[in-house]
Amino acid sequence: MAGRPPIPMRFADVIARKRDGQALTRAEIGLFVRGVADGSIPDYQAAALLMAIVLKGMDDAETTALTEEMVATGDRVDLSGIAGPKVGKHSTGGVGDKVSIIVAPIVAACGVVVPKMSGRALGHTGGTLDKLESIAGFRIDVSIPEFTEMLRDVGAAFVGQSPTLAPADKKLYALRDVTATVESIPLISASIMSKKLAEGSPALVLDVKCGDGAFMKTEAAARALAHSMVVIGSRAGIRVEAVITRMDAPLGRAVGNAVEIIECIDVLRGRGPADLVELTTTIATRMLLMSGLYDDATAEPAVRGAIASGTALEKLRAIITRQGGAPAVVDDYQRLPGASHRGTVTAPRSGFITRIGAEAVGRAAVVLGAGRERAGDRIDHGAGVLVDAHVGDAVAEGQPVLTLLSNNARAIADARAVAAQAVRIGDAAPPPRSLVIDICTSN
Amino acid sequence: MAGRPPIPMRFADVIARKRDGQALTRAEIGLFVRGVADGSIPDYQAAALLMAIVLKGMDDAETTALTEEMVATGDRVDLSGIAGPKVGKHSTGGVGDKVSIIVAPIVAACGVVVPKMSGRALGHTGGTLDKLESIAGFRIDVSIPEFTEMLRDVGAAFVGQSPTLAPADKKLYALRDVTATVESIPLISASIMSKKLAEGSPALVLDVKCGDGAFMKTEAAARALAHSMVVIGSRAGIRVEAVITRMDAPLGRAVGNAVEIIECIDVLRGRGPADLVELTTTIATRMLLMSGLYDDATAEPAVRGAIASGTALEKLRAIITRQGGAPAVVDDYQRLPGASHRGTVTAPRSGFITRIGAEAVGRAAVVLGAGRERAGDRIDHGAGVLVDAHVGDAVAEGQPVLTLLSNNARAIADARAVAAQAVRIGDAAPPPRSLVIDICTSN
Repeated sequence: MAGRPPIPMRFADVIARKRDGQALTRAEIGLFVRGVADGSIPDYQAAALLMAIVLKGMDDAETTALTEEMVATGDRVDLSGIAGPKVGKHSTGGVGDKVSIIVAPIVAACGVVVPKMSGRALGHTGGTLDKLESIAGFRIDVSIPEFTEMLRDVGAAFVGQSPTLAPADKKLYALRDVTATVESIPLISASIMSKKLAEGSPALVLDVKCGDGAFMKTEAAARALAHSMVVIGSRAGIRVEAVITRMDAPLGRAVGNAVEIIECIDVLRGRGPADLVELTTTIATRMLLMSGLYDDATAEPAVRGAIASGTALEKLRAIITRQGGAPAVVDDYQRLPGASHRGTVTAPRSGFITRIGAEAVGRAAVVLGAGRERAGDRIDHGAGVLVDAHVGDAVAEGQPVLTLLSNNARAIADARAVAAQAVRIGDAAPPPRSLVIDICTSN
Repeated sequence: MAGRPPIPMRFADVIARKRDGQALTRAEIGLFVRGVADGSIPDYQAAALLMAIVLKGMDDAETTALTEEMVATGDRVDLSGIAGPKVGKHSTGGVGDKVSIIVAPIVAACGVVVPKMSGRALGHTGGTLDKLESIAGFRIDVSIPEFTEMLRDVGAAFVGQSPTLAPADKKLYALRDVTATVESIPLISASIMSKKLAEGSPALVLDVKCGDGAFMKTEAAARALAHSMVVIGSRAGIRVEAVITRMDAPLGRAVGNAVEIIECIDVLRGRGPADLVELTTTIATRMLLMSGLYDDATAEPAVRGAIASGTALEKLRAIITRQGGAPAVVDDYQRLPGASHRGTVTAPRSGFITRIGAEAVGRAAVVLGAGRERAGDRIDHGAGVLVDAHVGDAVAEGQPVLTLLSNNARAIADARAVAAQAVRIGDAAPPPRSLVIDICTSN
């Protein structure tokens, strides 16, 4: 009625509406997100609503509102002062997933700016920041103004997420982690997309992984997450494509930190493993297409050309230099941290490798020191796992399949027990499968 | 494996199991309840689990385990030193529900001990303790040893629940109240039954109300709650019967505190309203049957006899005296608090009353001062609503239907607006319906 002030929302009533399966309004979602950010909504009410969201879901409008309200709790990077098209890239995480470190220099070498805020290793999945910190002096902890300067100077930069971007997301994630409310497509997609929107890219290619080593175990779940993020992007005014890819086996032949940096440089030198080359080429091509500078006829040749000509490798060198690292690692892998101890997982019988389980390899890498059980754990940058024989390869009994690397001698035996579970051998090679399952766009 | 210590439970994993629809083990439920009681499980984890329970349910074994673990967090009343059979009584709450104050003296007069721990008014429902405190000097705040002494001396006593009984329930209820996790059959039945088990009665008659003025709005919900509580009792080793009764209209003709005490005495004098006499006779008869002292042929005549002979009224007098109250109120209603202001809701047209909505009457009573919006609010013991013309009565336009009583003049007009919504008038009287819908037992 006219003149009557709006009735203040009782937050328990908002929780009750979601509990009963109703869609929340923008105002209700805003109350929730701001309340979490400023502490005015207690954790127990937030936890109850999160569980109701996990079990009752959110529609696209709600998920977009959740994303945008989380963005609104913090800063938003302004890339408008940087010339040229900008395209971001994000992966939902996997084992041996070093794609960002390869595609960013390729795409930047092709004239497209790649602003890349990345995360740390946690659980069985690695983190781009940890991999880059294998390079002595490489600084990822920079201010937003310095980040944009780096982008202006080099065209690509790898930095840690600023704590001032979507701070509500960080608080919510910490609460979800201890309340069994992580597994929810709307909550996962809003969390990812809030950070990506805050990072300011007008276009974004997502690598949504599915399978044993991914957060999404099934193709259906990955498709649902991809769809949700593409829709949020579209509703929030940025262009998003999601490439749905397999993560049943480790990507490439190296899992760890320094060993993955070596593999990245190998790809940029034109000598990487086929699966990793396939995926990086696809992602880089999609990014060039989204930039508007390339079309279907020119994008993939540009990617291949940047590798063949060496401009992509030069771009990586420039990124390393600009971020304080020693670019000599590109030519001398001895400058990267090594491992004083090694062990081997051998083939228990002759035959063909039918499976190298990504999650078990990732867990073995954590045991070796390459990853983290808990946020804050220290990393052994020289530790990791090398895949000597991959899925489809013929092996003889006793032939090395995995090489385990660590600077902790005692970790080798423990990791071997974990890693051995990853290997399956059969009588025939499985049919080769493309890593790329589908590409999901808002069109 | 032999020699290996049990793996400590991560509580987030317990939450995840319920989130995924699995049944929790006794050990998991024990961890939860003890953790809530001793504060070792944070409120946000408890809230997430509560919401998962609301949405995924609990089976009978889980609900019983929850009940028994809550009992185990506190004291349990020992009634073994008191001679004779003991039968408890509990109502899920309604408007004008004064049944306990009538049946306890009847049943005690028939030789069956009635230990009665009761609650306070909250929201639109009244509370037995508040009604009894209309009687000057009546003490409900007594220790457990004094409670058992009163039972030994008089055969019935009305006291507040000791805070040392099922303390986990109190903490859980406070959390449920602010996290929209009240509405759950397993949580409601475990909450009620934990208190009843701790109160030590080996037998219990439950009045499970359904309808507009009850917590359970539908008969189906009331049946589910009744079934759950009967099963918990059976599994936990006590006998429980649940009488499912209608709570669409106020019970009897008085809603408030002093006015309800008067109506109780009227029933015990053999001159109460038919609906209230019917229900109290049914409940008291079931209690006598459960005691084992009476059978189908003797129980109801004993109830009627206790009223006709005056022994039930004498028992009420003895209870009041033993608990410090002035027994003269039984003979002189002027000794009860009155109301300095009154108002009337009249019939808006001539016809038959088809509905006196219980919830609206209850809310009007709160406005008048007879109840509480929030725990801790003060009560006006003289305030209340009298139902002058009840469902089925013929009325002429302008004839009084409800009388509003208060010691706050300004409350009358506000309460009238609320109470007027309760009254519906039609062209024909609705068919008379018994208040008792069904009796649910474990046999």
